[in-house]
Order: sequence, then structure tokens, then C-alpha cells
Amino acid sequence: MSGSSSPGTELPAPVLPGPVLIVGTGLVGTSVGLALRRHGHDVWLADHDADNLAAAAALGAGRAGEPKAIGLVVAAVPPDHLGAAVVDALVRWDAAIVTDVGSVKTAPLEAVRASGTDLSRYVGSHPMAGSERSGPAAASASLFEGRAWAVTPHPKARSDAVETVRALAVACGASPVELTAEDHDAAVAQVSHLPHLMAVLAAARLVDAPHRHLSLSGQGLRDVTRVAAGDPTLWRQIVSANAAQLRDLLLDVRDDVDRLLAGLGDPGAPDLLELLRRGAAGTELIPGKHGKPTPAQAIVYVAVPDRPGELARLFADAGQSGVNVEDLHIDHDPARPVGLVEIVVSASSADRLVTSLTAQGWSVHR
Amino acid sequence: MSGSSSPGTELPAPVLPGPVLIVGTGLVGTSVGLALRRHGHDVWLADHDADNLAAAAALGAGRAGEPKAIGLVVAAVPPDHLGAAVVDALVRWDAAIVTDVGSVKTAPLEAVRASGTDLSRYVGSHPMAGSERSGPAAASASLFEGRAWAVTPHPKARSDAVETVRALAVACGASPVELTAEDHDAAVAQVSHLPHLMAVLAAARLVDAPHRHLSLSGQGLRDVTRVAAGDPTLWRQIVSANAAQLRDLLLDVRDDVDRLLAGLGDPGAPDLLELLRRGAAGTELIPGKHGKPTPAQAIVYVAVPDRPGELARLFADAGQSGVNVEDLHIDHDPARPVGLVEIVVSASSADRLVTSLTAQGWSVHR
Repeated sequence: MSGSSSPGTELPAPVLPGPVLIVGTGLVGTSVGLALRRHGHDVWLADHDADNLAAAAALGAGRAGEPKAIGLVVAAVPPDHLGAAVVDALVRWDAAIVTDVGSVKTAPLEAVRASGTDLSRYVGSHPMAGSERSGPAAASASLFEGRAWAVTPHPKARSDAVETVRALAVACGASPVELTAEDHDAAVAQVSHLPHLMAVLAAARLVDAPHRHLSLSGQGLRDVTRVAAGDPTLWRQIVSANAAQLRDLLLDVRDDVDRLLAGLGDPGAPDLLELLRRGAAGTELIPGKHGKPTPAQAIVYVAVPDRPGELARLFADAGQSGVNVEDLHIDHDPARPVGLVEIVVSASSADRLVTSLTAQGWSVHR
Repeated sequence: MSGSSSPGTELPAPVLPGPVLIVGTGLVGTSVGLALRRHGHDVWLADHDADNLAAAAALGAGRAGEPKAIGLVVAAVPPDHLGAAVVDALVRWDAAIVTDVGSVKTAPLEAVRASGTDLSRYVGSHPMAGSERSGPAAASASLFEGRAWAVTPHPKARSDAVETVRALAVACGASPVELTAEDHDAAVAQVSHLPHLMAVLAAARLVDAPHRHLSLSGQGLRDVTRVAAGDPTLWRQIVSANAAQLRDLLLDVRDDVDRLLAGLGDPGAPDLLELLRRGAAGTELIPGKHGKPTPAQAIVYVAVPDRPGELARLFADAGQSGVNVEDLHIDHDPARPVGLVEIVVSASSADRLVTSLTAQGWSVHR
């Protein structure tokens, strides 16, 4: 990575209008505070929940309370309360720039429009980061490190408001990605909310599965269902707030399920194969690292004894090959103390890695 | 791991009736040959495809051709041809034990029953291992290392046939898991085939997504959709062969999609929250390593420069903490040369890892 247009850790910390007020001290709000405090910004915290507020302040995310003037308000409350929180901030702090960090962007924008308050100072945003844990205790100054952060301007937004929200993302270590609120909501419906629901549909079937059936579980099942472990109460709000975008996708899914059911009865029917092909084609469209299309990659499998230190030894040995590891995953033997590590590397370097690791005594295959 | 009932790498190589004939020299058949040859077994190979056969033999998976006597036949052809291949093997080798390695187990068993041939010498099996690649060139002696291998006896199976197929799994480095063919097919419908279809449904939506929407893709999307990249032609056969088990699951999915669509219009409706809760509950039922329920785990996130050798340095440093890494994953910044590594460890050791890595200069959070 090089070039002046690339945001990098070497750039000076962006200037933010201060002080900053964070409304809502859950996982994301507290993490924003911690990230900004790292750069010395003056951060204030507000929350209806006195325990969360005290915890966030104790962690060093900012000071509890409200100063006389505020330069930037970050609304970090759950989706159901987001519109009201943004409108309230715009009214109470009539010189401040206001953003929010919610998972859906048209709903709060519409709430501001409907309220008749000053739209020009509001620019929504959405850091593409989270955790299966929640609350201020789960927060971290580096939660957004290396993540995309959607910034969603609208026609009436002041340019300095847009720049301020971009600067907030950069100050938190994230990379701003600019798009409209409508585009954002359509995008996350496709790349986040619908996939979440498909994971839920797969995982929900397991509740009635006999325990012995689950002994055949492999990495595929774990990957497909992992996100379904997220907080159901929060996801109910996210899905409901993006209902308009999700409805069309879910209608398409229902049509596909009907086609699958019809195709099951007739192995020669073209629908089943065509749908499987569309799925495979879809996976190839997901960008890989650095926003570029996924290059041709290969998986190298290595059997690793399930003991502390063995991974370190593996990666030290892999490092000697000079091959860059793009991704990796560990699968587990259901009955033996051996882990199977999948190392994803560029297709052109896989043979080199296999040769190198084999020479160092590892059990390796592609 | 200890105790005499636990299959371990220390046990002597199991005795297999030889010679072994492998019918079908694709990824799985060739890998079985390579694994058995590692122990010095006498392996013969057969395939209608002369190129695959020659490639498998050249790789050292066995000799092309058929000897006068055969002790064990392993049918490793695609699902559509599996029943015929098993029946053919039972008829031609009237003293041999016959197994297959297909993804669905009732269909070949029914084919043998319907043929009137000697059912007692046939025991189906299914190694829970695969690859996104296919053909003999993708094969490996360690493909099954550390994997579950389903063995599916039936009431008329000879006990020595069951023991032989179990021994085949162990000889290939896998852990045999015994269950009936019906139970196997119900199990893989839930833990493999339906999750595959849900991944396909999520990935299929991306084909029509504007490219800019995909810039917000994160690790969740990659995880949910990864398996959908598998060979559509092979999966068409697998899904069709397990149609009976999949139909009921897909009808349940359709009901859930209808409930989702109804719940979207009414945020207060209990159905949406209840389904999200079922999904979260389902994820907790997936066994973790060694067949035990997943212990309380925690994720530690570390920002890692995207250069060769940095992972080795990270795991060397992590190894110094004495914490055992249960799983890990790398996420990528869309615009910066920094990778975010997720290290899954037991919840009780997460703080120790965070403290240790932070002290060694890494940017870490939980």
C-alpha cells in the first residue's frame, strides 16, 4: 500500500471540533470515547443508564456530564431510540455537528427531517465493527482499527459536517467510506442483515436436532452460523429499522426456497443447479483485502498438535517461506488432540509454502 | 485427552484386508489411496476417466488396474453414480468388503437392497473432509487428518465389515463416528446441506448488488457465504440425493421466512425476536473441539501489519503467555495495510493473553 490518497497510520491525527459528547455508553459509544481519548480529545459522556455511564467514565472513555459548549455529538444508542437522540442533540446543542453510529441510516435521517430541526449539521455514520459482547466493559480503543466506517451525507449537509464525521472515523482508526443513507441501507441489507438472517435460519434448525447429529458438525457449519450468536434484542431493532430494504431480499429468498423445493423433487430440473451457480458466483464478488477483488487464493491445510506454542512454531516456520498469510482458520478433531489449520495464501505462493512446511516436518496438504 | 477408549496417534496402524481397490480417483478417492499407501497398504485404482487414473497413480495413490483378489473396495464416485458403483463392486468381488465415501448414505444402501446382492459385506461411510478444489491433483495423504469419518452400519452388516470400515477411517487419520444411514442423512441435512443452501441464498443476492455496496463487506459476510463457493455440479447431486431429509427443513425455513416478512411490518410482533433467539440458541449447541460442548470462549482482537512474518511474531508472543489458541481468523481493512486477527481463547485465559500481548506492544482489545 502506498500513495498519498491512502489513509495510513502515519498521517497526523485529524482535527475534530471539541469538546465531543457521546450519548450512549454501550460497546460502540464507549469504544469511540476510548479511541478519541487516546488522541487527547476532550470527551464527555451521557447515558440514561447510570451504571454504564459510570463504567465508561471509569474506563477512561471520557467525563460523565455535559460542558457548556459542544463541538460534536455522537449518538450511540440502540436503533429504536436513534432518531429521537439525534433530534434531541441537534435541538440542545445548536452549534454542534451531530452524527450517529447506528446500523441503519435512513430512519434517523427521516426522523430529523420530520422534526423540522436543522438538518445541515447532521451527517449519519456507521462503523463496520462490533463484537458478540456488549456494554462498556466490552469496549476498546482499537475496536475500529482497520475497519470500514460508512459516512452518509445528504444534500443539505454542510461540507464541514461531512468532513468532521470523516475525521471522527479516521481518529478512531477506521477508513471512511462515503455513500448515501439509502445506498448504505441497501448495502448493509445485502452484505450484513440478510446474511445474518440466513445464518439465523440455519442455526435455528439446530435447536431441534438430536445431540448426536451435531457430532458431524464441521467448520462449514460454524462459519455459516457464527454471526447468528449476536444479541437477538439488538438484531430485532436493526432488522426492523431496515425492513424496507430487507423485504425485497426476503421475497427473493422465498422464491428461491420455493424453487429449491420444486427442484428437490426433480433432479433434472435446471433451477437447483442454476441457484447453486448463482451462489458460487456471488462469493466471487466479495472484495478481499484492501478493497480489491479477491485474488486467486489457495488453502494450505496443516495438522497441528493442540498444545500451547504449536501455532507459534507453525507460523515461525511459515514465516521462513516468505509467503504472506491472507487468512487462516482452525478446525478441530472431534476426538483427538489435533487441530487442522487452514492457511489461505495467494495461489501462486501455495506450493512454496507446502514445500517449505513439509521440509520442516509438518503434515501439510493443499 | 487420555483413556484407552480414545483413538490416538499412538495406536498401531489398524489391520485392513488387502489388497484395497479404490473406484474413482477424484479428490477423495485419490486422498484415500495416498493415506493408505503411507502405511504401506497394497492399493489398486480404477476410474472411467483415464487421465484421472493416470494422475492418481503417478501421485503414488496406488497402481492402476485390478488384481485377482480384493479385500476391500472403496467406492469414491459422485453421488449420482454411487449406488451402481457399490452394487457393481459387491457383484464383481464376491469376497470383498465394500464401502463408499459419499455425502449421502441411505441412497446407496437402498440401491444395494434393491439389487438383491449380498448386503452383509457393505457398510457405507463418509469422511467429513473436502476442499474447494477437486480432482486427483488436489488430493493429499493428510486430507482426513483430524476429521470425523461417519461409519453407517445396517442390521444385516457383518461385524467384520463394520470393523474394516472403521479401520479404514483410522488408517486415513480420521476419527470414526458410528450412526445409521438414516441418522447420518438427517444429521448432514442439518449440519451441512441446509447450511450450504442458506449460504447459497445469501451469496446469490450479491450477484445483483452494485459493486459499491460490496465495499461494506466484512468478516460476517465472508463466513456466512464461504461454503457457497463449492462446486455447484457436485452440490446439485448431494442436495438431490438427500432430498427427503432436506424437504422438511426447507419447509420449516419457508415458514420462518414468512414469519420474518410478517414481523418486518410489525416491529412489536414477537415472531422476529423469537426466531433471532432460536438462532442464537442454535449456535450454542454446536460442539467445539474434541466433541465437547463449546466452553465459554472469548475473542481477542489484534491489529497486525499486513507483512510476511508478522503473524509468526504475533504467535510467538502469544505463545509466551501460555494461552492455548482455540480458533483464529483474519479480517482485512478495505483501505489499509493492517490485518485484524481474531484469536479465540477460553474466556478464563483471555485477560492473560490481552495483558501479555499489550505488554509486548501489540494493539489489542477484547
